[in-house]
Order: sequence, then structure tokens, then C-alpha cells
Amino acid sequence: MKKFINSIDTLLDESLLGVAKAHADIIKLNKQPRFISRNNPTKPGKVALISGGGSGHEPLHTGFVGIGMLDAACPGQIFTSPSPDQMLAAAQTVENGGGVLFIVKNYAGDVMNFEMAGEMLDCPNAAVLVSDDVSLPKTHSTGRRGVAGTLIVEKIVGAAAEQGFDLATCKALGDKVSQATASMGVALHSCTLPALGKPSFIISDNEMEMGVGIHGERGHETINLTSATEIVEHIATLINKDLNPQKGQTVLLHVNGFGATPLMELYLIYDLAAQFWEKRGIIIARSLVGNFTTSLDMTGCSITLSLMDEDLLKLWDAPVHTAALRWGC
Amino acid sequence: MKKFINSIDTLLDESLLGVAKAHADIIKLNKQPRFISRNNPTKPGKVALISGGGSGHEPLHTGFVGIGMLDAACPGQIFTSPSPDQMLAAAQTVENGGGVLFIVKNYAGDVMNFEMAGEMLDCPNAAVLVSDDVSLPKTHSTGRRGVAGTLIVEKIVGAAAEQGFDLATCKALGDKVSQATASMGVALHSCTLPALGKPSFIISDNEMEMGVGIHGERGHETINLTSATEIVEHIATLINKDLNPQKGQTVLLHVNGFGATPLMELYLIYDLAAQFWEKRGIIIARSLVGNFTTSLDMTGCSITLSLMDEDLLKLWDAPVHTAALRWGC
Repeated sequence: MKKFINSIDTLLDESLLGVAKAHADIIKLNKQPRFISRNNPTKPGKVALISGGGSGHEPLHTGFVGIGMLDAACPGQIFTSPSPDQMLAAAQTVENGGGVLFIVKNYAGDVMNFEMAGEMLDCPNAAVLVSDDVSLPKTHSTGRRGVAGTLIVEKIVGAAAEQGFDLATCKALGDKVSQATASMGVALHSCTLPALGKPSFIISDNEMEMGVGIHGERGHETINLTSATEIVEHIATLINKDLNPQKGQTVLLHVNGFGATPLMELYLIYDLAAQFWEKRGIIIARSLVGNFTTSLDMTGCSITLSLMDEDLLKLWDAPVHTAALRWGC
Repeated sequence: MKKFINSIDTLLDESLLGVAKAHADIIKLNKQPRFISRNNPTKPGKVALISGGGSGHEPLHTGFVGIGMLDAACPGQIFTSPSPDQMLAAAQTVENGGGVLFIVKNYAGDVMNFEMAGEMLDCPNAAVLVSDDVSLPKTHSTGRRGVAGTLIVEKIVGAAAEQGFDLATCKALGDKVSQATASMGVALHSCTLPALGKPSFIISDNEMEMGVGIHGERGHETINLTSATEIVEHIATLINKDLNPQKGQTVLLHVNGFGATPLMELYLIYDLAAQFWEKRGIIIARSLVGNFTTSLDMTGCSITLSLMDEDLLKLWDAPVHTAALRWGC
């Protein structure tokens, strides 16, 4: 295993020091328990938005803390849920009279720990569960996983909270966006977890893993490597079946890299996905292409479609200033 | 070789379609000859800024076309210089009465072709040569290569051109920034060129390549894999020797990923590099961490230091709206 690290044990903390230092104008680090929060005060009464999850998906979530998006993010160890005390400390720090909204990717550990933090918190709080991964059926025992669609929920609810929407409205908005968002991923090579020292799964040179999550877990099937056009057709068809957008529907199309896929290929995938929906009369009003919800050094990508309307587009376009998403500021 | 492509021959064109479509609000694609240019008119008399080079380094340069940065970018095939007719067509399209400034990474093919384009162009034009790679001695036969520091030149000269600086002033500014910028890279694994189908070089599991360029070429030495702290010490010492910043000097510190290095590790490298210069009394006034000058799927990173003053910082901070760098817009 080759990594730019000093030791596996200190990787997360050393990396967080860098995140906080490189973006000291907008965020700061609380070392114990670990969380990143905004550097600048928010308006009293603003709903405090907090997310978190295992590390290794950067820039998600620390890269989304700042004006117009999250108030705090709690990073767990790599692919490991943060603990309730991190979430509680973050919430107590950023709560500003408007209550706390947790945005939680649907994984058992994350869900349980955010629930515990919510119970311990002595202010109004709620949670939005993101479960956009359509590679699993809706009836899956623990529900669908939360993947790259999470950032869309965080951006839109973040803008709403910044504009003074109350807790119940932010929660309802988050649920609405989450339900209108579907994603699916594919990998050519898995990632190497530092603690494991080798790829989490190995497939042959003519295979790919369809329906992968973001933790190096296997997908729903291993199939023969095929053309980009066929890969996109496969994924987009499943997403389309799930969301069933009608002709004239406005959408946001997000192609996300898992960490080691060249941007050239991500843009190629984006164009093919755009063609897929344009052919069906769907209007791609906004686009996002790049590495936002990564899986360490996994070679792969995901496609996310999110149904939009005028109000959601305005919230998406609202000013944001974070490490990883920035416009209008 | 596993890639998300349809064919090696169509990869570049299909990818450019995606770039143009995803950022249709700011840029457009000319298919034949290939160049990306701004979608919105510029002020008459503005110096037109054009860069280009082999593809595979995305977002460089196409991702830097837009308000406050480039007027056009000419992508060659992967790791191959664009042709003079691309540069000429781009220049004729975006020239707006203020002349043309080419920003050229120092590689023989790029330099020769931009020179030819300049000779064919019937308007005032000049070129800034970027040669920030300190892994080669200043006396190297073809000079030092241009690597990740190029984006700093493009951003600062881009802001100056937007503000109405004339051609001679933009050229002098570009030369000044270029000379005040030093970079060096290290790789753990090389990249796989689609046309080659295998990594451009192979090193063992306990080795790394020090002083790599961005084209999959070998570095100046293959050394044993060591800790991140030692790697940063090695690179930063060489950069420091070259630029020799004095105590109290203001700088921009840029840690660039080559494509497949997790952001966690890039931020860790950033923190160590920042410590290196902070210890020496250097003031890190601006930072940039991420994958900006990539080498397809190479696992590696580079560190760039650029000496700043108040005027340069203002130009760095000026509004920019491109696919890959955006603030203030």
C-alpha cells in the first residue's frame, strides 16, 4: 500500500489540520471531539445544519461547511460513523436559536448515532435521511444507502436555512429533495483502505462492479467491462425508472468521481448521461461534474439525477462559500 | 486497461462535448479545430488570454476559461501539443482589439506551436513561458517544465487582463509571476495512457518517483517510499532553495493532486508544507488544495509556492468564474 501519510493512526487528524488551515477564512476545527464548524457567526434564529459520516469521502462533508451550506460536519474515522459525542458537541457549538437539522446518509451506524445525539440534545432537532442509491431495491432491509445525492440535499437545505426557513420547513424540504434524488455508481477498481492495506475487492481486468456504494463494498453485480455508452445506459435506465421524470421536467444532473477517475472520463460520462435524458425531453437546468463524494482512491463514478422546480433551482443557485462548492460569494 | 470510454480515438472529442455542455453558461466548444472559448463578450480592447497543451491534465486548461481567467484554451490529444491552427483559430475568435497573450507551459512542442501561431497572427501578440518545475536544474537543455504553477499565472494575468491592463503589462506580469513560482511533484504510481494501455512506468511497492512531471515521464530519482513528513521536507527544501523566500514574505501555497490521490492525503501534505514555511517565518496568505493540474490517473501530488505581494494578492482574489475556479461571481 502506498499512501502519503505518516501513520494510519494520525492520518485523519493530520488531514483535518490541513483542511482547517487551508480554509481558515471560513471554517475551524474542534480537535476533541472532532468537528469542523463555520468561522463566522450566523444570524440568530437560523436553523443549524449538521452532517457527518465516515472519512474518506472528501470533500464530503467537511468541504461543505460554510456560508449557504452546513454549519458543522463531524468526520468519523475512515468509512466509520462519527460518534454521538461529536455530533452533540458540534450541535451545541453551532445551535443558534433555530434548532438543529441533521443530514444523515442512510447507514446503520450513522443513523443510530445521529439519533442518539438528537435525543441528548436539549433543543428542537430533526433529521433528514438521504437514501438515493437505487442500486438497492426500495424494500431493502436497511433501506437504500445515501451516496452522492447528499450534497444536493445539503446545498438546497443549506440555502433555505441561510434564508431563514424554520426547522420544520427545512426538514420537509430536505425530505422532498432526498426523495426526488436518485444515484447509482460503478467501479473499475476498488479503493485501498489504509487500515486494510489492500483493495477491498478485486475484480479482473475485463470486469466492472455495477451498483457500488462509497465504502469499497461490492456492488449488486460484477459484469463485463463495456463501453461508456452502455454503462451510462445501464445506470441512467435504473435511475430513470426510479424517478420516472416526465417530458419537460427540470433536473440537476451530477456526475461524481469516486477519487481516481480522470476528469476527462467524468465529462464524457456526463455528456452521455445528458444525451440520455435530453432524448427523453428532460431539461437539464443545472450540472455538476467532479469528485465530490469520493471513496478514497476508487476508480469509478456515479450518476445522480435530482428533480428540480423553480424554487429548488433558486436555492441551488443561492450564494455558497465552502471549501468545495463556491459561487456568488 | 480500464477506462470509461467508447474508443481511444473519440475520447477527447466526447469529453469536450461534456465540458461544453456542463458549463454552457460560460464556455462553448469549437469542434474543428478544437478550442474552448468564453460564451460571453469581453470589453473591447481587453487583452485576449489563451493557453493550451496536451489533454489529460484536466481541469487545466479548459476548466480555466471564463470571466477573470482565460479567453480560450486549445486542448491537444492526450499529452500531445495542440497544433498551431488550433491556437490561430482560437486567437482569431477571441481577439478583441487588445492583442493576444499566450500562456505556454515550457515543452518543446507547445513552445514551437505557439510561436508559429504567433507568427501567423496579424495582431499584436506575446507569450509567457511557464517553467516552474524545480526538479530540473535551471541550466537544463530545454529549460524547466511548466507544471501546476501555470494556473497561478493564468489566474493572476487573467484578472489583470479583465481589469484592462495592456498587452505589455500583462506579459511582464506573467513573466514576473512565473519567475516567482516554483513547483515539484512526486508519484507513487504512474498514469495509464489510453493509447499505451499500461502505466508509463512501473516502480515497486516500496518506491516512489521524486520530481515527476505531468506526462507520466519518470522523475529525477526513484527513492524509497517514506513518510509524508519526509516527502514534504524533501520537496519543500528544493522549492525553498530555488525561491529563497525571506522571513515575512507573503506566499500562495498550492498542493495539487495528479488525479488519483485522495483529498485526505492532499490536505495532510498541505498542512506539512504549511508548517515547513511557517517555521521559516513565511506568511501563507492564500492556499489552494485539490486536483487542478492532473496527469490522468497518476497517484501523486505536487507542491507549488508562489511569492506574492499586495497587488498580486488583489489579482488572485479578483472575481473568477470558470469551470474549475470560481469566486466573487
